[in-house]
Amino acid sequence: MTDSQTAASPRDADTETGQRPRVVIVGAGFAGLSAARALARAPVDLTVIDRHNYHLFQPLLYQVATAALTPAEIAEPIRGVLRCQDNARVFMDEVTGIDTGARCVHTKRGARVGYDTLVLATGARHSYFGKDHWAAHAPGLKTIDDAFHLRQRILSAFEKAEMAEDSEDRAALLTFLIVGGGPTGVELAGAIAELARSVARDFRRIDATSARVVLLEAGPRVLSPFHPDLSARARRDLEELGVEVRTGTPVTEIAEGVAVVGEERIATGTMIWAAGVQASPAARWLGVEPGRGGHVPVGPDLTVPGHPEIYAIGDTAAHVPDGADRPLPGVAPVAKQMGAYVGRRIARSAAGKAPGGPFRFRGRGAMATIGRNRAIAQMGRLRVRGFPGWMLWGLAHVYFLIGFRNRLAVLMNWTWAYATWQRGVRLITGAQI
Amino acid sequence: MTDSQTAASPRDADTETGQRPRVVIVGAGFAGLSAARALARAPVDLTVIDRHNYHLFQPLLYQVATAALTPAEIAEPIRGVLRCQDNARVFMDEVTGIDTGARCVHTKRGARVGYDTLVLATGARHSYFGKDHWAAHAPGLKTIDDAFHLRQRILSAFEKAEMAEDSEDRAALLTFLIVGGGPTGVELAGAIAELARSVARDFRRIDATSARVVLLEAGPRVLSPFHPDLSARARRDLEELGVEVRTGTPVTEIAEGVAVVGEERIATGTMIWAAGVQASPAARWLGVEPGRGGHVPVGPDLTVPGHPEIYAIGDTAAHVPDGADRPLPGVAPVAKQMGAYVGRRIARSAAGKAPGGPFRFRGRGAMATIGRNRAIAQMGRLRVRGFPGWMLWGLAHVYFLIGFRNRLAVLMNWTWAYATWQRGVRLITGAQI
Repeated sequence: MTDSQTAASPRDADTETGQRPRVVIVGAGFAGLSAARALARAPVDLTVIDRHNYHLFQPLLYQVATAALTPAEIAEPIRGVLRCQDNARVFMDEVTGIDTGARCVHTKRGARVGYDTLVLATGARHSYFGKDHWAAHAPGLKTIDDAFHLRQRILSAFEKAEMAEDSEDRAALLTFLIVGGGPTGVELAGAIAELARSVARDFRRIDATSARVVLLEAGPRVLSPFHPDLSARARRDLEELGVEVRTGTPVTEIAEGVAVVGEERIATGTMIWAAGVQASPAARWLGVEPGRGGHVPVGPDLTVPGHPEIYAIGDTAAHVPDGADRPLPGVAPVAKQMGAYVGRRIARSAAGKAPGGPFRFRGRGAMATIGRNRAIAQMGRLRVRGFPGWMLWGLAHVYFLIGFRNRLAVLMNWTWAYATWQRGVRLITGAQI
Repeated sequence: MTDSQTAASPRDADTETGQRPRVVIVGAGFAGLSAARALARAPVDLTVIDRHNYHLFQPLLYQVATAALTPAEIAEPIRGVLRCQDNARVFMDEVTGIDTGARCVHTKRGARVGYDTLVLATGARHSYFGKDHWAAHAPGLKTIDDAFHLRQRILSAFEKAEMAEDSEDRAALLTFLIVGGGPTGVELAGAIAELARSVARDFRRIDATSARVVLLEAGPRVLSPFHPDLSARARRDLEELGVEVRTGTPVTEIAEGVAVVGEERIATGTMIWAAGVQASPAARWLGVEPGRGGHVPVGPDLTVPGHPEIYAIGDTAAHVPDGADRPLPGVAPVAKQMGAYVGRRIARSAAGKAPGGPFRFRGRGAMATIGRNRAIAQMGRLRVRGFPGWMLWGLAHVYFLIGFRNRLAVLMNWTWAYATWQRGVRLITGAQI
């Protein structure tokens, strides 16, 4: 450890005063990180700003919430991902506003980061459709801290039930209510039902397998973006796991320990919100009129109308492809392809080349898992379900995980869990008794 | 999922009304869990009460705080450990008092748990020697939540330094101060120095290898329970890693961002307390006069004087062996042997046999690690250091970890870290920007 006066490296000045175009990417999710990586060899000065120090593989976050995986297995430090990309620096900070006139981003820590090109990839957060007071009772799942919180709630419910003296209390504590029948809701419901089975041997006074898992979907079927046959299969899979699936039943009120669903009041110790998302406040920062769900409307090249120097990508953006009647969905493949497209476009401009044509999404299919040996997948006209679907789902998810080590760790954890029926990460942290 | 009315299992009544002696163990650390396992086949009704749902392998906790291991690798749900022990039930609750007359333990959740035999294995917590206001500035390391908190502080210090504009701020943020030169302090100092090296490539504006790591020890040498030769070697190892070791220098004041050490004021972004522990409030619960450090004095059979039905073991107890002038140290081997002894003793009594002779500790040696390829170990007159000591340390720690899966995961993580010089778990969670 040498004299601390030498802490500032010479690269500092370099990035501050370089003549190369300054590119700022806000958000290091699938969209932002893809853009950053597509700029790896571009003659630009790149700054990536994120509230967290990690990139999160969100599709597996529900497995952290249900004690199957540990966060480090699905998250990777952003600095680590961009270590060898010398044109990139990373700031762990939160953007609070954008001065589009001065071309400058303002942050919570008080920094002002100037840009020539800005990429907004700030993602989405939960939407309680105006009932924000529901958030305290039915938290959602977007970040690792959310997952810790849910894991703590779910595992604590079994602990409290084991000690409850009253049978009504016990029944309520063993009732898990999930609002929203999209992929996250379906995956959580299946995982909680399986968790209840796997912990049953550990309890003496309660029968954990009697836990009631209720999945509420306001629409007519779960996993509605999939073919109706696959939706029906997913529902049957869930029901075989013991999940109560209720479609066409919106929740009308949520309060501490109780949800009102149609005529029924369901007493429950654990509610989870998987029903709605809305885009982050990027539209407000830009002063543009947001689309439905708070999205920033973008042109065919993913720039914000009136701001050819600002791109919005991933869940932040509403991109309606030519000839389509609604925006592309907020899923990882769309975000990644948008990021890569924008990164390549900026790289070409920086190299003095023509930026290229409009963005075109190439869908390769979609999949969702319900539980052990159960998943559905849809690729074009091909539809897969059951064990083959599940193997496909597992391979695809391990393949897309960033970092060799994480892939190996996840595979090992899954193999272990499959062979032993045990969950590896049943730790209650951050809890107050 | 069947009718929730069936949630209470028949085993409930069994454990409540059985004629077998009721044994209550408070605390599932090394001492408490060893006692519980020694009672595996005993004709008793066993209740284990712990504030956490996990047993923690505390000797490796510093590796969670320094981003080398993930908590699940060194913690195991207590229920999982006792799954097959049908005479045991587990309560996740906090003991608030003991009614020794009614032979009943009171808990925070309002339960009253009756006992015929009580085992207190509640461990120790930090002691700031009366300066409790130091705790907010220099947190310690006892639980997983402590480790998360330290990890967040340590990693955030580098993040903040990267963004600091002022060179004094930057130098302070890159100064890490550890108070206490025992095993925890030494291991933390070495691990932070190595962490700084391993992340250096990830930062652009700071030189992380210039981080200043200061280890303060009030006494004349670090790792004082070891032979002076080994202490001296540990000090040299630390200094080779770039750690500033200061012995004979007590800290006289700690405030936000600054510690006063002798004549010097050290500006620092991260302080860690590894200096003192005191026993948990068991002595207060019992109404007995605590020994130095808050310990419960115990007799040769580890019972509390005047209470042949109450044992105190592990860090809770001060046991002075025959002919010795001071109590056994608060380390894992002592705790485990005390637990096993008490468990066997209770089992023999329950079976109508003579309880056996007094407790005798069989020391098998001690070890501490400083960093990559550096550790010291002492077994009787044998003293090992350097790479052989480090291999010995690693093998012993992996061997003693509970659960096959964790051993494998830890080995894999260590091997990965050794081969790549990278840290696997560099996630900042629970932080507010």
